[in-house]
Amino acid sequence: MLRTHTNGELRLENAGQTVTLVGWVQRTRDKGGIFWIDLRDRYGITQLTLEEGQEAETLREAARELGREFVIQVTGKVAERYSKNDKMPTGDIEIRVESLEVLNPAKLPPFLIEDDTDGGDDLRMKYRYLDLRRTPVRQNLMLRHRMAQAVRRYLDAQNFIEVETPVLIKSTPEGARDFVVPSRMNPGEFYALPQSPQTFKQLLMVSGFDRYFQIVKCFRDEDLRADRQPEFTQIDCEMAFVEQEDILNTFEGLVQYLFKEVKGLEIGKLPRMDYADAMRYYGNDKPDTRFEMKFVELNDVVKGQGFPVFDNAELVVGINAMSCAAYTRKQVDELTEFVKRPQLGATGLVYARVEAGGNVKSSVDKFYSQEELQKWKAAFNANEGDLLLILAGPADKTRKALSELRLEMGQRLGLRDKDTFSALWVVDFPLLEYIEEEGRYFAMHHPFTSPKPEDMTLLNNPETIGQARANAYDMVINGVEVGGGSIRIHDRAVQAQMFSLLGFSPEEAQAQFGFLLDAFEYGAPPHGGIAFGFDRLCSLFGGADSIRDFIAFPKNNSGRDVMIDSPSEISQAQLKELSIKTDVVTGK
Amino acid sequence: MLRTHTNGELRLENAGQTVTLVGWVQRTRDKGGIFWIDLRDRYGITQLTLEEGQEAETLREAARELGREFVIQVTGKVAERYSKNDKMPTGDIEIRVESLEVLNPAKLPPFLIEDDTDGGDDLRMKYRYLDLRRTPVRQNLMLRHRMAQAVRRYLDAQNFIEVETPVLIKSTPEGARDFVVPSRMNPGEFYALPQSPQTFKQLLMVSGFDRYFQIVKCFRDEDLRADRQPEFTQIDCEMAFVEQEDILNTFEGLVQYLFKEVKGLEIGKLPRMDYADAMRYYGNDKPDTRFEMKFVELNDVVKGQGFPVFDNAELVVGINAMSCAAYTRKQVDELTEFVKRPQLGATGLVYARVEAGGNVKSSVDKFYSQEELQKWKAAFNANEGDLLLILAGPADKTRKALSELRLEMGQRLGLRDKDTFSALWVVDFPLLEYIEEEGRYFAMHHPFTSPKPEDMTLLNNPETIGQARANAYDMVINGVEVGGGSIRIHDRAVQAQMFSLLGFSPEEAQAQFGFLLDAFEYGAPPHGGIAFGFDRLCSLFGGADSIRDFIAFPKNNSGRDVMIDSPSEISQAQLKELSIKTDVVTGK
Repeated sequence: MLRTHTNGELRLENAGQTVTLVGWVQRTRDKGGIFWIDLRDRYGITQLTLEEGQEAETLREAARELGREFVIQVTGKVAERYSKNDKMPTGDIEIRVESLEVLNPAKLPPFLIEDDTDGGDDLRMKYRYLDLRRTPVRQNLMLRHRMAQAVRRYLDAQNFIEVETPVLIKSTPEGARDFVVPSRMNPGEFYALPQSPQTFKQLLMVSGFDRYFQIVKCFRDEDLRADRQPEFTQIDCEMAFVEQEDILNTFEGLVQYLFKEVKGLEIGKLPRMDYADAMRYYGNDKPDTRFEMKFVELNDVVKGQGFPVFDNAELVVGINAMSCAAYTRKQVDELTEFVKRPQLGATGLVYARVEAGGNVKSSVDKFYSQEELQKWKAAFNANEGDLLLILAGPADKTRKALSELRLEMGQRLGLRDKDTFSALWVVDFPLLEYIEEEGRYFAMHHPFTSPKPEDMTLLNNPETIGQARANAYDMVINGVEVGGGSIRIHDRAVQAQMFSLLGFSPEEAQAQFGFLLDAFEYGAPPHGGIAFGFDRLCSLFGGADSIRDFIAFPKNNSGRDVMIDSPSEISQAQLKELSIKTDVVTGK
Repeated sequence: MLRTHTNGELRLENAGQTVTLVGWVQRTRDKGGIFWIDLRDRYGITQLTLEEGQEAETLREAARELGREFVIQVTGKVAERYSKNDKMPTGDIEIRVESLEVLNPAKLPPFLIEDDTDGGDDLRMKYRYLDLRRTPVRQNLMLRHRMAQAVRRYLDAQNFIEVETPVLIKSTPEGARDFVVPSRMNPGEFYALPQSPQTFKQLLMVSGFDRYFQIVKCFRDEDLRADRQPEFTQIDCEMAFVEQEDILNTFEGLVQYLFKEVKGLEIGKLPRMDYADAMRYYGNDKPDTRFEMKFVELNDVVKGQGFPVFDNAELVVGINAMSCAAYTRKQVDELTEFVKRPQLGATGLVYARVEAGGNVKSSVDKFYSQEELQKWKAAFNANEGDLLLILAGPADKTRKALSELRLEMGQRLGLRDKDTFSALWVVDFPLLEYIEEEGRYFAMHHPFTSPKPEDMTLLNNPETIGQARANAYDMVINGVEVGGGSIRIHDRAVQAQMFSLLGFSPEEAQAQFGFLLDAFEYGAPPHGGIAFGFDRLCSLFGGADSIRDFIAFPKNNSGRDVMIDSPSEISQAQLKELSIKTDVVTGK
């Protein structure tokens, strides 16, 4: 090895030892007759010193030539520092340098390699290998490694087997867009990259593997938002001979283990919430339960007093922003603007303050007497100093807008602390949702999800199809859906019925999923599973909003890797060999 | 859970307990008033019994309807068996069934789900999910899981961090063919799937990650042989601030750990052999060292005695097939045919037997006196009963043919036992090899491999380029190259020189690998690494020749997954969205 120790390793008890260190020059100072070098590696920073007279002058001259990010190797004696730095693990010692070799010089980096850098997003993406040198980014990837190791440890101990499923699979019409791969050996045909290993893990259950998992790359060719990547990683799991309760318990255990191992936190048992309740009380199927501020429905309380906005609304619903009665007019106007933005589309915001003494003062006092307003106060269980925020309109749209307002208020009130974690299961999702534009039902989870046995008959009547619930569940932490899954169909006839409900002809179903339908006829056990978004889970554990900094080499919002300049044109010879042409005139 | 125990779990001490089991019906017998069912799951087989009168007759009637591979759930009492089966872990007990439910019936499988099946390769590939039910195949995948877990445990303990590198990368002209992926968002442009994460792991070293690994899918669009797959898995590793010796020690440790953990074997320290010696003594850069039978070069011993085949040959070289003097004429003729096959192309085989008493009898006695033949015997260090097999011709071709003959003799003599393991490092590979048809040098390992410092000057002279050795190494076990790697170039100028030697113009080098060349200017540490073929390593540990049975869902020799019928045609709409056309007229 080119070193005897790392830069995070030496302590006072090493004083007197001769050591060899390697690393990057973080910074240098030449002051008061002493030349200092901070030497950095993955493990930490160690201070090197060259005192006047102590070392040969040629050594000091060499040191003066060092720039930021030079890679050097030094040998010297560990010595106690004159002035210690108790913020650094190596802060009690320094190395009195006796020899110094430049292993590789460095040009001046395009941005500062410091915890707080001056580099913009684009520059840091282009020089990602330099951005990865920064401690916060490196720590994200080390967290990710620790999490992956812990996931495997837990699942292995629970008798799960990691099985690698193929990356070159078959394109399917349902769901998001596939990435495809032309086959040279089979001209005119294409593989597809998996959006998930769903059918393969179900086949592994049919094979008797009983408990499967995989930390696996998946691919979706969707238009990208800030928190999406064309390739992403799932913790993909499946179990046979289980019921929903068994799966919830097993994976609740996984997440409890991760919090304990990685963050040192006990998150306790996860509450379970019906989808219906989540929508009713939070307007959202992934409620942020770090804070209460539940929805209060007011139709019975507010209607019939002559205020047309409320009287004509399908739903009047509000939240109690506790202790916000002192909000200024300007602050309330901001909230009104917030809910009136086009993506939420509320027509306005009604508010009411509970004043000192208990009187309620609202923005619609001309329609409501104090007596009526006291009923509001009671409905919200409000106290002096509280601010009630109320929306009215079509139920779904109003719930959605109020959900966003609730999150905004949570943010403003500091109730969404990144170091506080609140996890729960949302269960009993609808099986199907009708998409108006497409004129048909779509699977809310995916086409392999089983209906609740007691809701099976609802599927036989066009009027009630939409009411059928699925054996499906999501794990939600801090308002983020970190995982979701379902008990699967394991019966050929039920699966065929599901494909039919989704608009597949029997021929199409057989062409696309015949292997799975056939497999169900050879002894398929009851089974179910779950998949966690691993990038998202890591960013949540790391207290960040974006998944990008938890991925070593992410792509930008156009799906480009600007560092390696990909995607790129390929040669005509390559295209010809693959029996394809592009519609685009290229330079090659 | 639908069960209280697995089918591998119950023992005599459970007698008297009421249990619920689930699984697949392996077989049934109705004999002597008792109805037997062998119930199978991943964990084992448990015997179920229904005695006459003991259970209701309806239960027995239900049991008689059971077919092979039905999925059932039974509840009953654990009882001591009348006649125990000490070959089964559960052989002391049986379950007296009290209730039985069919969870899913099964059609008759297309082949027997037994250790020895009657299914042919094609049928088993089509119904892979049924083939995976067979114990030997399942055990292969469980071995693979255990190996992956052990690899991660070892490397994690050595401070390696697993980092996921991208799957959607950039096509490069060097090496094997890339699979490509058209980009919808960037029309006319393509991603490529990685043949290895080589440049990314080097960038991670530039980033200071210091010790990286990844168990990762890689892709090569090559014509497939029985032991190749278009997607395969590597254990990919890289270390910074190391020399070759450090890497050999670290990964020797990994393989020792794997043998110990997974096979319970101590394989000891790995010998190191120069590439030159491997070629000289085994005619092969991946020698099977489970047995000696080293090459003996005979030019000095046999020339000048008037035998033109030897006199005109560049190389005369042989092996001592010990104790084979009794080989019949027929057996020797077989060996002669073996080396004369077109792929080896030897013109003939000279042999000599050491007879009882020490006399040597050769196939070329008319050219060689007994005195001369005694010199052969001495050169081979041969004893009574040995058979000397000698080839002559151009050096490279003759070594290759003799290498195959040596392996054949090893096989015939039972010296290549699958449960014996002999591992070694082959080191000091040539840096470049000249490919006549292409008229240029190619990197023997890859273009990022560093020359040995002492051989750098050889690269400046066209006459000596081919003699330069690389800091490259392979790990070989039982004649199989399981891993290979090198110390990398970390200097921009040297890397640019290497691209130039490989025929890249400076512009081409910059366009393809500019990101790496640039990265080397910002403080790149010395680094090197290795990649192991994980499929191959698993098959070696599992004592099998083919990697296919260690992959859950392999493709056939045409790159097809016959189970899911992939690759397949995609719709015109999909093609249009991707801005590509196929040259093939399709039905869609």
